[in-house]
Amino acid sequence: MTFFEIINTDSHSAARRGVLRTAHGVVQTPAFMPVGTAGAVKGITPEYLAASGAEIILANTYHLMLRPGVDVVEALGGLHRLMAWERPILTDSGGYQVFSLGELTRIDDEGVEFASHVDGARVRLNAEIATEIQYRLGSDIIMCFDECTPLPADTARLQRAADRTIEWAKRCKAVVGSRKSEVGDRQTADYRPPATDYPLLFGIIQGGTDLELRRRCAERIVEIGFDGYAIGGLSVGEGHEEMVKTVRYTTPLLPRDRPRYLMGVGMPADLLAAVLAGVDMFDCVLPTRNGRNAFAFVPGGSLRLRNSTHIHSTEPIEPGCDCYCCRHFTRGAIRHFFNCDEMLGPILLSIHNLRFYQRLMAEIRFHIEAGDFGIWAIQELAKYVEIDR
Amino acid sequence: MTFFEIINTDSHSAARRGVLRTAHGVVQTPAFMPVGTAGAVKGITPEYLAASGAEIILANTYHLMLRPGVDVVEALGGLHRLMAWERPILTDSGGYQVFSLGELTRIDDEGVEFASHVDGARVRLNAEIATEIQYRLGSDIIMCFDECTPLPADTARLQRAADRTIEWAKRCKAVVGSRKSEVGDRQTADYRPPATDYPLLFGIIQGGTDLELRRRCAERIVEIGFDGYAIGGLSVGEGHEEMVKTVRYTTPLLPRDRPRYLMGVGMPADLLAAVLAGVDMFDCVLPTRNGRNAFAFVPGGSLRLRNSTHIHSTEPIEPGCDCYCCRHFTRGAIRHFFNCDEMLGPILLSIHNLRFYQRLMAEIRFHIEAGDFGIWAIQELAKYVEIDR
Repeated sequence: MTFFEIINTDSHSAARRGVLRTAHGVVQTPAFMPVGTAGAVKGITPEYLAASGAEIILANTYHLMLRPGVDVVEALGGLHRLMAWERPILTDSGGYQVFSLGELTRIDDEGVEFASHVDGARVRLNAEIATEIQYRLGSDIIMCFDECTPLPADTARLQRAADRTIEWAKRCKAVVGSRKSEVGDRQTADYRPPATDYPLLFGIIQGGTDLELRRRCAERIVEIGFDGYAIGGLSVGEGHEEMVKTVRYTTPLLPRDRPRYLMGVGMPADLLAAVLAGVDMFDCVLPTRNGRNAFAFVPGGSLRLRNSTHIHSTEPIEPGCDCYCCRHFTRGAIRHFFNCDEMLGPILLSIHNLRFYQRLMAEIRFHIEAGDFGIWAIQELAKYVEIDR
Repeated sequence: MTFFEIINTDSHSAARRGVLRTAHGVVQTPAFMPVGTAGAVKGITPEYLAASGAEIILANTYHLMLRPGVDVVEALGGLHRLMAWERPILTDSGGYQVFSLGELTRIDDEGVEFASHVDGARVRLNAEIATEIQYRLGSDIIMCFDECTPLPADTARLQRAADRTIEWAKRCKAVVGSRKSEVGDRQTADYRPPATDYPLLFGIIQGGTDLELRRRCAERIVEIGFDGYAIGGLSVGEGHEEMVKTVRYTTPLLPRDRPRYLMGVGMPADLLAAVLAGVDMFDCVLPTRNGRNAFAFVPGGSLRLRNSTHIHSTEPIEPGCDCYCCRHFTRGAIRHFFNCDEMLGPILLSIHNLRFYQRLMAEIRFHIEAGDFGIWAIQELAKYVEIDR
């Protein structure tokens, strides 16, 4: 039994229904990972997070290494203990944040040096440090340190970023290799841990929306060989069509028997389109960030709860939704909470939106198993045309 | 069977252990009411609020009449429905807020006119309007409209406020009287509702820390006759000793067989001292407000969670506490959440502090029943000397 098993495939698309085993438990795929940037999924307790159906969450190495720092996380018993989250955690490598949040002071083939957005301190990050930190956080899935390019970026820049991402991936794998042999050294003759007792390592494909670059990067990353493969550098403003085109081109270049993760994506329509293209995992801040801004996801669209049309509404956000918010609160009450800046507004919409995303993923998995995913997903996508334009 | 029953008294103090019956259920007294100012107890869901052990909460007429407005509350199914809180709610009359928040434009014996702190609109409030609004909100316990004086206030001012409070109390009672007869008119010969099918009306004693004024006001308010009696105008900066002195002087002037409510109080030591003096009910924003500001209540003291001494602490806020926060999170993690402005920090400390207050009340009730309250309370009070000074 391997750590990733495909239990169903869709005959009309590249969609797959899988099971991913990690050190902290099993994840049914396609899966959506809520984002717990600094060790907390914003606005809700882990109790509501678990109730949403989330089986795995993402945490950000960049944020955690700056605050509270990896020493503190270790002293507090590791990231799972700090977060009070006993299920799997995937950590990103910090690459994306270094290039988007930190003020870069130096970047070369060795790694990067940047000014912390917290206190301006000079911090260094490279393949070895990023991998080591993720180990020490207690991550279940470690991401390779990569260079993420902003939009727009010329081919030379994309090329250089992809090349560095490939070289850094080799170095990340080397760190994991030496860590694994340490684990091996500690084992007794009677006991060998299952494959998932140490974290999985995922490689990242870069290359922007340049398909030729994506192909070359994918080939090299697959050649190095990882437990799973992520498509990075998307959802940075390229739009739904370009994103889908790039994903559809890239997924067939990845091994069939390994999980595929589309980083930072996305809106419901993005998820549907990417699952059609064969993606297994997603992460995105939208359910919580939009929830805090009075934006509620509903089937085929959205509600803006600050809108005065909701003042007298006794309807729940989404009739039929089984989340705590929809079972107990009217749209009118939630509008009132936002209007008064009561924390309960953001809390309730975060609860609903996270549950909405998990219900969407459960439906996706159901239809792949039922064998009608291709047809169903196209119909669903049509409903979302409005919201994504 | 009346709506208020005293089931135990303490032989060494004036403390009483009672049961208060309202339209939305029973409240064990002495009771602490968390404050849901604008229809939400700040920072937590009603699910955690119920889990804290709270049996009754307070909501503010002033805030609700301005936002969302009583028409909207009615359209949304009443205050209990808006808040998703099925247990009793006590509403204040708006008096305290009018005098402390609104920019007063006119005050006379008839009532007040003030500028809304939300949009500056001129709003009028008097005995009839305040009582009617509380009815329409669906309150279980209505408070009389009173004039609350700030500190310092000269005797003339205190006197005038107490006189107005007495006159307004008569008018509030008249409104309730006509409402009750309406209910009576609708009854069939076969059915009479129990006393608690309509809200209870509590009178308020004013008079600052002037004991002679308190006595005269109490006599007049008791003469008018109410379901319960509140001591208002305290916890406005007079300090623990003055507050306790005033309470100890006032409670013996109130009927033994009616609930006594000390408004806006207080710190744990204040509650212990007031229960010793025979008070049955309290409300205060401290558990939630302090929680949002990284201040945690613990037995005999407090913790400031932003303090760097907690960085590496793997202890819960209060070892042995059964709240969600203490069962799952370390002090170090909570400090980190506050340090990063994660909403989870305020959420967790609000959960803990509310549970702390309810555990304190449960202990108080336990010791009154056990017959050793007087001795126990004095010992407990000694522990809190530090925190209140």
